Amino acid sequence: MRVYGDIQSGNCYKIKLLASLLDIEHEWIHIDILNGETRTAEFVEKNPNAKIPVLELEDGRYISESNAILNYLATDTGLLSSNPYEYGKIQQWQFFEQYSHEPYIAVARFIAKYLGLPDDRRAEFESKQEGGHKALYVMEQQLQQTPYLTGERLSTADISLYGYTHVAGEGGFDLGRYPAITQWINRIQSQPKYVGMD
Amino acid sequence: MRVYGDIQSGNCYKIKLLASLLDIEHEWIHIDILNGETRTAEFVEKNPNAKIPVLELEDGRYISESNAILNYLATDTGLLSSNPYEYGKIQQWQFFEQYSHEPYIAVARFIAKYLGLPDDRRAEFESKQEGGHKALYVMEQQLQQTPYLTGERLSTADISLYGYTHVAGEGGFDLGRYPAITQWINRIQSQPKYVGMD
Repeated sequence: MRVYGDIQSGNCYKIKLLASLLDIEHEWIHIDILNGETRTAEFVEKNPNAKIPVLELEDGRYISESNAILNYLATDTGLLSSNPYEYGKIQQWQFFEQYSHEPYIAVARFIAKYLGLPDDRRAEFESKQEGGHKALYVMEQQLQQTPYLTGERLSTADISLYGYTHVAGEGGFDLGRYPAITQWINRIQSQPKYVGMD
Repeated sequence: MRVYGDIQSGNCYKIKLLASLLDIEHEWIHIDILNGETRTAEFVEKNPNAKIPVLELEDGRYISESNAILNYLATDTGLLSSNPYEYGKIQQWQFFEQYSHEPYIAVARFIAKYLGLPDDRRAEFESKQEGGHKALYVMEQQLQQTPYLTGERLSTADISLYGYTHVAGEGGFDLGRYPAITQWINRIQSQPKYVGMD
C-alpha cells in the first residue's frame, strides 16, 4: 500500500501512527502542499478534492479522508469495534474532529507554525481560539470519565483526535488547562510501537 | 427511538429521510436552535457539543453527529455496505461532506434563508461561494460516472450529501450548472417512501 501525505500534517500523521501501531507495511510518498503538489493533474486523479492524505491500495484503488482511511485500515483489529453502537460512537468523535476541532485547532496551528503568524492572518488566528477551546473542553469532559474517548480501549477515534490535539500548543492552545487530555496524550504516547510526528 | 432535531436543518433532515426510507419508527422532538435550546443543561447532557441532531436509543444511550447516526441506523440494510472498501468510500464522502461541503453550502444557506442576508454577513456569504462550487464540482465529476456517489446503489453517502445539496439554491448556488447532480437529485426523490424537507 502507498500513502500520499506530509507527516507534518496532523491528518496525514494519523495514518502514520495507526500503521505503526498495527504494523502495516506501506510506502510513504511525500506530497508538498505549499508547493501545489495536490493540484497536479496526476494527483487530482487520485483524489478529485485535491487533499492529502490519500491511501492507494495494492490493486490501484484509492481512499481519501484521513478518518475513512483509519477505519478502513483498522477493520478487524482491536482499534475498531464492529459493534454498531460502539462503531457509531467512534464515528461520532471522528465527525466531531473534522467539523468542530480541526477547523479551529489545525488552522490556528497552520497560521502560526507554517505561515509565521503574519499580521494579515492574526485576526483569523484569534478567531479560532474560542472554537478550539470549546472542542478541547468537550474532549476533557469525556476523558475525565473514561481513559479513551469511546471507553476503556484505544480506538481509531483516539488516533483521529490525537493527530492535532497533541500539537495544539503550536496553535496557541495551552493544554495545561486540560489535565485529562494531558493524561490521555501520555497514555497514547506509551502505546507499544508509538511513533511521533518527527 | 427518539430524534432531537429541526427538520429545516439539512443535518437533521438526513435522519428523517433515512428513517422514512428504512421504515424506522421514531419520535421526533423539535429543538429550536435560534432559541438556544441546544444550550440548556438538559440538552448538553445528551450532546456535550451542543448540536443537533441527537439520536436517543431505547436504552437511553445517545449518538450525535448526523453521519454517524445514519450509519448506525443503516447497519445491516442495503444502504450500508459492510465490505471494508465500500464502507471506506461511504465514509470518505461523508467526511468530505462535513469538511468540504457543509461549511460552505449550509452556512451560505443559513445566512441567506434564516438571517435574510443582512449587510454585515454579506462578505461571509460571498466567501462561501467558491468553496461550495468546488464541492459541487467534485460531486458532479463522480455522478457523471456512476448513478450514486459510491457506485450503482444508493447508500448513506448519498443521504448525507443530499441533505444540503438539494437545497443549495437557497444558498445562492445554481444547480443548473450541474446536470449529473440534478439527475441524482431526481433519482433520490424517486425512491419509494422518499420524504421532503417540509
